[in-house]
Amino acid sequence: MSNQNLKELRDLMKERGIDVYIEPTSDPHQSEYVAPHYKGRDFLTGFTGSAGMAVVTMEKAILWTDGRYFIQAENQLKGSGFELYKMHTPGFPSYQEWLKENLKEKSVIGVNGEIVSEGFVEEILDKLESLEPLIYDGEDLVGLVWVERPGLPKGKVIKLDIRYSGESTEKKIEKIREEMISEGADIFLLGSLDDIAWLFNIRGSDIKNNPVVISYAVVTRDQAILFVDSEKVDETTKEYLKLEGVNTMEYEEIFDFVSSITDDKVIVLEKGRVNRKLYSTIPEECEIIDFQNLTSLPKAIKNEVEIENQRLAYTKDCVALTKFFYWLDNNISSAEITEYDAALKLLGYREQIEGFQEPSFDTIAAYGENAAMMHYSATKDNHAILKPKGLFLLDSGGQYFEGTTDITRTVALGELTDEEKRDFTLVLKGHINLISAKFLQGTSGHALDVLARYPLWQEGEDYKSGTGHGVGYYLNVHEGPHRISTAPNNVALEPGMIVTIEPGIYKGRMHGIRIENVAVVAEDVETYVGQFYKFDILSWCYIDPECINPSMLSEIEKDWVNNYNMQVYLKLSPFLTDNQNAWLKDKTRKI
Amino acid sequence: MSNQNLKELRDLMKERGIDVYIEPTSDPHQSEYVAPHYKGRDFLTGFTGSAGMAVVTMEKAILWTDGRYFIQAENQLKGSGFELYKMHTPGFPSYQEWLKENLKEKSVIGVNGEIVSEGFVEEILDKLESLEPLIYDGEDLVGLVWVERPGLPKGKVIKLDIRYSGESTEKKIEKIREEMISEGADIFLLGSLDDIAWLFNIRGSDIKNNPVVISYAVVTRDQAILFVDSEKVDETTKEYLKLEGVNTMEYEEIFDFVSSITDDKVIVLEKGRVNRKLYSTIPEECEIIDFQNLTSLPKAIKNEVEIENQRLAYTKDCVALTKFFYWLDNNISSAEITEYDAALKLLGYREQIEGFQEPSFDTIAAYGENAAMMHYSATKDNHAILKPKGLFLLDSGGQYFEGTTDITRTVALGELTDEEKRDFTLVLKGHINLISAKFLQGTSGHALDVLARYPLWQEGEDYKSGTGHGVGYYLNVHEGPHRISTAPNNVALEPGMIVTIEPGIYKGRMHGIRIENVAVVAEDVETYVGQFYKFDILSWCYIDPECINPSMLSEIEKDWVNNYNMQVYLKLSPFLTDNQNAWLKDKTRKI
Repeated sequence: MSNQNLKELRDLMKERGIDVYIEPTSDPHQSEYVAPHYKGRDFLTGFTGSAGMAVVTMEKAILWTDGRYFIQAENQLKGSGFELYKMHTPGFPSYQEWLKENLKEKSVIGVNGEIVSEGFVEEILDKLESLEPLIYDGEDLVGLVWVERPGLPKGKVIKLDIRYSGESTEKKIEKIREEMISEGADIFLLGSLDDIAWLFNIRGSDIKNNPVVISYAVVTRDQAILFVDSEKVDETTKEYLKLEGVNTMEYEEIFDFVSSITDDKVIVLEKGRVNRKLYSTIPEECEIIDFQNLTSLPKAIKNEVEIENQRLAYTKDCVALTKFFYWLDNNISSAEITEYDAALKLLGYREQIEGFQEPSFDTIAAYGENAAMMHYSATKDNHAILKPKGLFLLDSGGQYFEGTTDITRTVALGELTDEEKRDFTLVLKGHINLISAKFLQGTSGHALDVLARYPLWQEGEDYKSGTGHGVGYYLNVHEGPHRISTAPNNVALEPGMIVTIEPGIYKGRMHGIRIENVAVVAEDVETYVGQFYKFDILSWCYIDPECINPSMLSEIEKDWVNNYNMQVYLKLSPFLTDNQNAWLKDKTRKI
Repeated sequence: MSNQNLKELRDLMKERGIDVYIEPTSDPHQSEYVAPHYKGRDFLTGFTGSAGMAVVTMEKAILWTDGRYFIQAENQLKGSGFELYKMHTPGFPSYQEWLKENLKEKSVIGVNGEIVSEGFVEEILDKLESLEPLIYDGEDLVGLVWVERPGLPKGKVIKLDIRYSGESTEKKIEKIREEMISEGADIFLLGSLDDIAWLFNIRGSDIKNNPVVISYAVVTRDQAILFVDSEKVDETTKEYLKLEGVNTMEYEEIFDFVSSITDDKVIVLEKGRVNRKLYSTIPEECEIIDFQNLTSLPKAIKNEVEIENQRLAYTKDCVALTKFFYWLDNNISSAEITEYDAALKLLGYREQIEGFQEPSFDTIAAYGENAAMMHYSATKDNHAILKPKGLFLLDSGGQYFEGTTDITRTVALGELTDEEKRDFTLVLKGHINLISAKFLQGTSGHALDVLARYPLWQEGEDYKSGTGHGVGYYLNVHEGPHRISTAPNNVALEPGMIVTIEPGIYKGRMHGIRIENVAVVAEDVETYVGQFYKFDILSWCYIDPECINPSMLSEIEKDWVNNYNMQVYLKLSPFLTDNQNAWLKDKTRKI
């Protein structure tokens, strides 16, 4: 029981004079999704969502999480001793505000320096400056309580061929060095795993759904070093790396390497993506430039090879998805199908695709009210049975050498209520409003976010999540630095950036709707006011006409739906049987 | 000639070993509009726009300004030795980027510490950190060159009655003290003139169109002091201030006061709005909290009395505007009317309004292509003659005890081209899209900005200015901290905030169009997703049906126009003659 874990944690805190212990969701690389070894926050709270922050004092235990997980967290926290605080929700302070209001002066704040970033700690110290708190960061207290903790992952490292990456490691490193020179830096220190995988054109299997390799990296003016458990790298891969100018050293050797950097060196790193333990190892005399990882932007801006591969990946992926929906439609009335069965069946279709590696995240197959939980996950033991009525939400994606996919469709399993149709149509209007936007060079996703919400807001609806996120190339399904969100973000969208567009409506105890497509930012016209960009859609799966209330759509919106669905048929039908095509023809009929 | 001034400045720079001199548009209070005494940047460059930044090295002289002034600056800078750099425009570095690229290590940067804010200098030092520049801030070099410099203004101070302010100074100070306590501050140091006028319910005439008093202010836990030239304050006003708990001291005494603050005190101030000279006077041992002026938000959120007064002010103001348009429509074909005449005539109508004080900014009366200059100003000697065809843009406002107004209309003086109608209708669509938005609590103007641009962007159009700004109450026509703009700004719009909505299209050598209304943020529905807000319109002047291409409008947009114009007629007709009403009836006819 979580209660016992909490009690033991508090005992350790008391022994050490710690007033508050903060356990975020993190690993030494500030990964969004972490290996089981690093799921200390899950262990402590019982809440298994991908994002959350546990804060424990002697009197209180609070978990902060975001809108995707409010319903799930409420359920999972029952009896845990943890209270749910809703992020970005009026009436709930942020964890920093809460600390500011509840801590005494000179309180001792405990964190595990191995998993929190330097930026994380500095931000706390800055926000709580007037309280002059002390940081205790030398021990993993949750780890001390956690007896049956899983070990570190041991996934093998593979090389990503240039026909997939589109650019050699040597070339990428060359460009990074140019950036280093322009920033006046001698050493680039890199801790985030997707950046390392991108830079060195390697992939691994250390984190489920995220084909990364647990490692650190350093680029100097004349060296590039990958710090990784040598057991994971075979000779061929080592040889390949060497040819590209990359040496390998053991994972833990990063600390010795960094501590022996000479005083005169200028180091560029992103404080929010380097753990505090490693950061503290840097000799004090070194100058540090805190700058967004130099790999971050070139990784986000996909090259031509990557974009063309992604188109291929989406076609294959959407064929699998369509086959699944065809199967579902033909069996829903005759067989007992659970949400869990549905996810497995879909996986089966994906597994038939050449080059499919694994899902890019846990499939969300959610029927009826379950779909109101944005990141719901049906299990073997806990799931709903699909019935031939109401809405079914399916959010899934795959990892391929040709890229990473992510797509959501909400479809009718039978008759719908007027409210279900109304809500679906509002979400569709938001989706169309954003995805068909032309926008000026320099515009951020934050500035565009409202376009997807506008039709919903006018009717008193909203969704408590971002509107879209970047997607990696055969890497993490969530990738920055750009995103489309109400949360401030000033990164301009640039041609080559891939982004999801996924507005929704989530009504507890009723239904959940999300329509998600993925697009790459592309050039549009240049006029006297400047260069315009547009969204070039990559994902092609039918938007269910049964869900739409056409009277709520303008002619322009109807044209958009009809054109999109026509394209779906044209792109996918070559890969489907006659029966499947007849069915798809109907699903892509004009509204 | 500017050239001579520039030469003399460079001579002074050389003598002092200054590598670059920066002269922004500013005064000791970081005012947006400054008294003639502080127009050093105008003097140096010849450019008279309200916003600009001059940067001078031995080799280069550059003026940065924003999109409102590109055309004007290009004209005025001819022969000045200054080159125009366009702000927020691809291809042009910001002045900080330019400095970073063009300065050598340990360069000496000269500024006048009396007029630049502490925040301004700190930002430069931060951005140029790697160059380790030195700051020379003890002299006003432009002032040394400027022989025939106007003196300091001597406007009288008046008290603003509570029937206009809606809240006593005593009450306002009480609330500020509560904020100070919650921030842990002993002293609140205030340099910005509109904040001071708001807090003490005083008004003056030191800056044209801005009824402020050149002064500093300090609020401690038990004192409130206004530092002002005593000649400006008569006994009655001094007595009034005393009754509200405010003491007065001489303007220059602020420096002695601040330098004698004891070491144990915590001072809250906004670094970007306190000049560097004053900031440097603070004893080094004092703790400083850099925080948005505590007056900024309560000033922006208008109280009920202020809002009701503003409604009154807009009715009076729009009656004057309507009378002017009636007169113009009846005389355009028979008389020779210039832009300058038009502005004077409009002023005449405003002067007939009881309580009218002065314009709230220089009227922009711009015919045809002149309107492409966003902040064009016709003069007695330089103006166009209005002809009975094409578009006429009129942006104007007044200062009243009942508030500050700001409104723009673009009207047809006769036949229009298809492109003029198309552009007007696009601007109208953007205007309607934003002003009829419902939006969730917590949304910033930055997040909403794209709603006004969206219909323009889809057709390759844009405007190089913000979409809207806050408006003071019988104070500055531009007031923060909120605004509607592509420039990042995270201040949430809150009920009581007044804001303009003014998209436009500006085509050099063709025409300029702007449709500006002013609204107050008000509560709308609260649903399960949260509290919604809306824009409650304050300004009511007809939108010219002659300019509209109705085939470009949706039914919803047409309804909006028809309903708006109907309201205009209902609100203004009681104050107009029968002839004027017959004319207005036609101008507000259904489209």
